[in-house]
Amino acid sequence: MRESKRIMTNQSQIITLLTDFGLSDTYVGAMKGVILSAAPHVRIVDLTHEVPAQGVLQGAFLLQTAWRSFPAGTIHVAIVDPGVGGARRRLALRCEGQVFIGPDNGVLSGALPDEVRGYRAAGESYVVHQARLPDSIEAVTIDAGLFSTPSATFEGRDVFAPAAALLTNGKPLEELGTRIDAINAFPAFKAPARGEDALDGVILHSDRFGNLITDIRAADLTSLPVVIVADKRVTLARTYEEAAGLTAIVGSSGFVEIALPNGSAAQALGLGPGDTVRVEG
Amino acid sequence: MRESKRIMTNQSQIITLLTDFGLSDTYVGAMKGVILSAAPHVRIVDLTHEVPAQGVLQGAFLLQTAWRSFPAGTIHVAIVDPGVGGARRRLALRCEGQVFIGPDNGVLSGALPDEVRGYRAAGESYVVHQARLPDSIEAVTIDAGLFSTPSATFEGRDVFAPAAALLTNGKPLEELGTRIDAINAFPAFKAPARGEDALDGVILHSDRFGNLITDIRAADLTSLPVVIVADKRVTLARTYEEAAGLTAIVGSSGFVEIALPNGSAAQALGLGPGDTVRVEG
Amino acid sequence: MRESKRIMTNQSQIITLLTDFGLSDTYVGAMKGVILSAAPHVRIVDLTHEVPAQGVLQGAFLLQTAWRSFPAGTIHVAIVDPGVGGARRRLALRCEGQVFIGPDNGVLSGALPDEVRGYRAAGESYVVHQARLPDSIEAVTIDAGLFSTPSATFEGRDVFAPAAALLTNGKPLEELGTRIDAINAFPAFKAPARGEDALDGVILHSDRFGNLITDIRAADLTSLPVVIVADKRVTLARTYEEAAGLTAIVGSSGFVEIALPNGSAAQALGLGPGDTVRVEG
Repeated sequence: MRESKRIMTNQSQIITLLTDFGLSDTYVGAMKGVILSAAPHVRIVDLTHEVPAQGVLQGAFLLQTAWRSFPAGTIHVAIVDPGVGGARRRLALRCEGQVFIGPDNGVLSGALPDEVRGYRAAGESYVVHQARLPDSIEAVTIDAGLFSTPSATFEGRDVFAPAAALLTNGKPLEELGTRIDAINAFPAFKAPARGEDALDGVILHSDRFGNLITDIRAADLTSLPVVIVADKRVTLARTYEEAAGLTAIVGSSGFVEIALPNGSAAQALGLGPGDTVRVEG
Repeated sequence: MRESKRIMTNQSQIITLLTDFGLSDTYVGAMKGVILSAAPHVRIVDLTHEVPAQGVLQGAFLLQTAWRSFPAGTIHVAIVDPGVGGARRRLALRCEGQVFIGPDNGVLSGALPDEVRGYRAAGESYVVHQARLPDSIEAVTIDAGLFSTPSATFEGRDVFAPAAALLTNGKPLEELGTRIDAINAFPAFKAPARGEDALDGVILHSDRFGNLITDIRAADLTSLPVVIVADKRVTLARTYEEAAGLTAIVGSSGFVEIALPNGSAAQALGLGPGDTVRVEG
Repeated sequence: MRESKRIMTNQSQIITLLTDFGLSDTYVGAMKGVILSAAPHVRIVDLTHEVPAQGVLQGAFLLQTAWRSFPAGTIHVAIVDPGVGGARRRLALRCEGQVFIGPDNGVLSGALPDEVRGYRAAGESYVVHQARLPDSIEAVTIDAGLFSTPSATFEGRDVFAPAAALLTNGKPLEELGTRIDAINAFPAFKAPARGEDALDGVILHSDRFGNLITDIRAADLTSLPVVIVADKRVTLARTYEEAAGLTAIVGSSGFVEIALPNGSAAQALGLGPGDTVRVEG
């Protein structure tokens, strides 16, 4: 029954925003005004607006780190959109009980299960490809014609925010546009094997503390406990407090981070997103 | 009837905040505490707190770009206030169904119609002048005596936030202070003619992406399609994606912006607010 | 009666957040998701997330400047926590009708009365010590076992946010863990006497405007009106507007600030937190 897929309209309905708009302009404020004009009782939560400008891959990563902390029915609007106003599709998709809205450039991959995204091979970098969606993930392209004269430069305000508001007012996802069964996605964030006993990781993100977050996962460290970054072998620790000097630690999203207690690993090493890390047996 | 002018007290009442307070201190948080203490059900939305320190003109511009995205009855508190604690007046004004609160130094001009603000002449810069208000715009000076012992350095917390809260609790605007019929305003953001077929624009704002937003309007480009900035002629594009190299584009607020796709026009040109731009036939 | 100490569960319940997490990651967003998952009607207010990384003392100062602007029953979650995942205790305390949650490293001292914190002596810097709590302040250590498998690196999301949510759902503070009667605290922010007619102040914080906020209090200036910073005597003013050049002024939290109108005192003097200031008779 279609009704069962509606998101309930109530005061605890949440819309989150993740963008590269920054906070020094009123872009984010204007989106919130549009949402609250159409859906006055919605709760709006900022995930972050400091995704590096046009950093689609990092947007996908940051979305992935946060959305599972929200309750079922939350709508996440993720906009890192160098192609705004152009021909790229606009998406809305429902996955594990939450909804994701944004351009079809890979930024929404943070919502997808690993097996849907597929995996990168050693030596490859993260590049979007068409990922076929299973039946459990419902996706549509958003029909911009639903909204009056979107500007060519600010679809966050003119298309994506109103689309989210429509859903909170009870419009079924399927009525936002045309059903599709594949979207652009980055491979799963997971370091591939390099030979028999090494993984070929990359740095996905440098956080506020200068921690370098890699695509190597906690489980990988069990058999491959030697972490090498910038030709340095770094020791493992369980907490930042235990760490002495440059350290590898399993961060809050389950990925291995390179940290420097009371300092910035990013600065000390001169490394950032895209640089490589290796773990060995 | 006076009652009809009251703002309705309900859970979807919105107060927005626009300041130059930044987010590294607790100034904004303290204002929110004061508002929620007096008006627990109000929704508070940040427009931006990163107006350049004491950038009254940019505050007015940023206010202008955002307030129309909000529903009728919204109260906008705009504080960029180098004269805090001094003799300048404090204003509350109702304009097109929304309310604006802030110091009388021009920051609220972003709320006023162009014809009320008047226009700058070619070669002049943006300087405040007394703008006479039409009957359709109701304005009062806020009587600081309504509030207990305001500090001399933080009227945002001690006067402006409580004034906004009073309105949401049903106090009529007229009872905040004394009715006035003129306020300080910057001229309308509109490039004046320089000779017969050129406009004399200025850069109002540099956004997070390094886009230089000018006071030249979309309509001006129809007859005067040649955009010259830093002695360079820049091509026109409809979207950022179409752009190749330095480009003029109509931004989301209807003003012409100078953009550099995958880069910062502000950095590439070394230009910012106050610098000039010209369009010609 | 224990019931009387419960925080009322209602839609105007407020949780504030003060952290050093910054806004470029999703750490803050994830905390909000956790809170809203458990307590959908809570209002969440950011005090600031730009406490300098691991700046526990500045976190305590910033907390102190803001919490009294909030209504009774507010819960403040303050997390600046270099020892996350380690052996330091986690605290919840009720003080003057509000609740404070965070690590036991001094960051919560901003909530305590001066006499509980004690005072530093001339020449000493701010270092935490065990402060005995009076009966009027109820404190417990939070039992992390209440929550499922906290990560070793993000207790903000996994322990502190859920603890705050539990309280808003009616759990009594005492049931979060074990009652204690002393916590780590910084001395009260109050410049000590150096000899008979001088005070030995330090800079606690540099705000967005470059104002240097000291631990010298308004009342101290009555008998000791000569303010000396970086070997310069600075004049006093009541408002920023009155000030001409480097000036001492009583800021919005009651502390003396060194300000430079239309400029940054911090930059002009090359000074910041920890540097000294003197007032003399």
